[in-house]
Amino acid sequence: MARIITLTTDFGQVDPYVGVMKGVILGINPEAVIVDLTHEIRPQDIGEGAFALFTSFRYFPPSTIHLVVVDPGVGGERAALLAETDCGTFIGPDNGVLSWAITTTGQDQSGRRTATVKSLYELTNPKYWLPDVSATFHGRDVFAPVAAHLSLGVEPRQFGRPTSGYRQLPWPALERKDDGSLVGSVIHVDRFGNLITNVPAEELPANPADFVAHIAGQSITGLSSNYVGGGLRALVGSSGYLEIVLGGANAAAHLRAKPGTQIVVCAGGP
Amino acid sequence: MARIITLTTDFGQVDPYVGVMKGVILGINPEAVIVDLTHEIRPQDIGEGAFALFTSFRYFPPSTIHLVVVDPGVGGERAALLAETDCGTFIGPDNGVLSWAITTTGQDQSGRRTATVKSLYELTNPKYWLPDVSATFHGRDVFAPVAAHLSLGVEPRQFGRPTSGYRQLPWPALERKDDGSLVGSVIHVDRFGNLITNVPAEELPANPADFVAHIAGQSITGLSSNYVGGGLRALVGSSGYLEIVLGGANAAAHLRAKPGTQIVVCAGGP
Amino acid sequence: MARIITLTTDFGQVDPYVGVMKGVILGINPEAVIVDLTHEIRPQDIGEGAFALFTSFRYFPPSTIHLVVVDPGVGGERAALLAETDCGTFIGPDNGVLSWAITTTGQDQSGRRTATVKSLYELTNPKYWLPDVSATFHGRDVFAPVAAHLSLGVEPRQFGRPTSGYRQLPWPALERKDDGSLVGSVIHVDRFGNLITNVPAEELPANPADFVAHIAGQSITGLSSNYVGGGLRALVGSSGYLEIVLGGANAAAHLRAKPGTQIVVCAGGP
Repeated sequence: MARIITLTTDFGQVDPYVGVMKGVILGINPEAVIVDLTHEIRPQDIGEGAFALFTSFRYFPPSTIHLVVVDPGVGGERAALLAETDCGTFIGPDNGVLSWAITTTGQDQSGRRTATVKSLYELTNPKYWLPDVSATFHGRDVFAPVAAHLSLGVEPRQFGRPTSGYRQLPWPALERKDDGSLVGSVIHVDRFGNLITNVPAEELPANPADFVAHIAGQSITGLSSNYVGGGLRALVGSSGYLEIVLGGANAAAHLRAKPGTQIVVCAGGP
Repeated sequence: MARIITLTTDFGQVDPYVGVMKGVILGINPEAVIVDLTHEIRPQDIGEGAFALFTSFRYFPPSTIHLVVVDPGVGGERAALLAETDCGTFIGPDNGVLSWAITTTGQDQSGRRTATVKSLYELTNPKYWLPDVSATFHGRDVFAPVAAHLSLGVEPRQFGRPTSGYRQLPWPALERKDDGSLVGSVIHVDRFGNLITNVPAEELPANPADFVAHIAGQSITGLSSNYVGGGLRALVGSSGYLEIVLGGANAAAHLRAKPGTQIVVCAGGP
Repeated sequence: MARIITLTTDFGQVDPYVGVMKGVILGINPEAVIVDLTHEIRPQDIGEGAFALFTSFRYFPPSTIHLVVVDPGVGGERAALLAETDCGTFIGPDNGVLSWAITTTGQDQSGRRTATVKSLYELTNPKYWLPDVSATFHGRDVFAPVAAHLSLGVEPRQFGRPTSGYRQLPWPALERKDDGSLVGSVIHVDRFGNLITNVPAEELPANPADFVAHIAGQSITGLSSNYVGGGLRALVGSSGYLEIVLGGANAAAHLRAKPGTQIVVCAGGP
């Protein structure tokens, strides 16, 4: 049964861990269509995994299964989750890594649409796991076989017991000051050195010329519409968030900025 | 409808940009067979992208769709191209990145066979794009959906208006001197540190023993037939071009050579 | 004909070499399901390739074709092998890279189950190769087309002549001293900096509290059951071998340990 399973992990691509997960999945459902979102999440960085999933799931069909394994607590007390939503089924450890993509209300802190949880289960039924479950590689022994059986049409409720809550990872604080300015932060640095912030497009001045921001000791005036041209510039990136870029070069290196670096967007216009 | 779509980008594999493009493609054509050529083109390096495509397309069936997104001008004035050829359909920005693989004459500067353009279109029809096109990620919003619809059998002319020209990226100069020597350059350094030059096999002496070359202050005499053995050696690489290698080690590091480094092949034999 | 072909190479992911191999495979069998195990084997490191295959093949269906191209001797005298086993068909150069996964006896030095060779062939029949075979890229010109034709149902004996032996790569020495202690070594460092050793779980004390080991000037007492928690710890990893980890951090960097670093497991118990 052809069905997309996306994989997001911090396993990297040097070790064959991801390949092994694919072997397990295809051994159970030979027709599964596996798509790598990324395996280069920084080791055990739950926030980076949550962000990757958050910016990606919207572009997949609602029948997709999203499997995320960024799992520093593997083998310990943390639960394993399966969340059925209106925009895909999400599987992963209950450590917050799924919690930016899915909500029970259907929208996030910015009022942006998320995947709305319809039902939630803890993976407790070993019937759908590999026979021998290691304490260190649940991606292979628990998560991959569960995703594969799900892709074959096994009902979500077969995989464990219903649960009502899950761990929420806090979204980096976005603060509106009394003077109308907005204080946010860099949430991700991409391959090009572009700084993606937690400031949503909706919070920016209606007139691009009114935009003024301060970051790492530099000021940027005006919003650009694309990457073409030189100098330090601000624009709304492809995820719908404010992005700081350096025309043809690496803004992160130039500004020595990284996730957590503060950005202040001044109150614009009259 | 099963059809191969290859992807060549400078998006890297840390961010989920490539995964998102695959989600868009599979959402439109669930049976598309997506093959990654490489996503590690140096950011915005059009020449490196052109070379990767040039050395690869010949090994795919003629029904293949080759999608290349190395696109520093995204959101600006550059056009987007679709080129139907006798050896695959090529899609990408009109910045030269397709122009080493495709020609209107069917052969390149070295007389080597290329993909011959049969028809050429600018992507101007938003019917086949995502509903909201960002200014910064046409790979996701324009190129991926166009490739997917094409793979379903939509006619090339449906995607936009016919055009006759496209931007040509100059092939690094190869010069035959009066004394018969040939001056070329390194065009690519591969993972092993092998130096791939722009000197085609056809230009080398018929007798391998007659070969003498100078590069980075070193001289190499004689052509080897493979990588086995030590020392600095020259051979015809798997792409049909002269390659300089260091047995069991990294020639680029040893010679401090890189793309653009000059090589002189002396006139051979009597 | 849908059949899994895994790829393990040292080609990296910067050059399009792997993509080209996939083009060749899909050109011959459009329904082949290709799974990357890893392409980041250190250049020409046969042991690392052997270890990746050894820890992975068990998780794939027995109909799988495992293709390994870590091939410093390409174009030279080394033979090319096809090994039919009870747990997949293995194809690669005869330089030892297959020899930790496959055995003629069905078990390795540790008594662990391996793939048992049923028949063995040298790839000598050019009928199933690309028409022009380069001296430097047999992955593309020989191995990929052979794997693809095999996946279509061509009989193994069609690819060449039967052979009885193959090159064995020595497994790193594991020595039991007179005092009962066990001297082994690190065999692999994974992405997280975890040190995977050649000491199999079966050789460890029955009581985890009895475990004492010395590595890089440090001592570790007691066996942990998972990665949760801090400090330098020992556990049985997901491959069934003793692993040294540093809670939440990189053990290899902390200990300056690497493949070959000695570990001594003391005799346990009363």
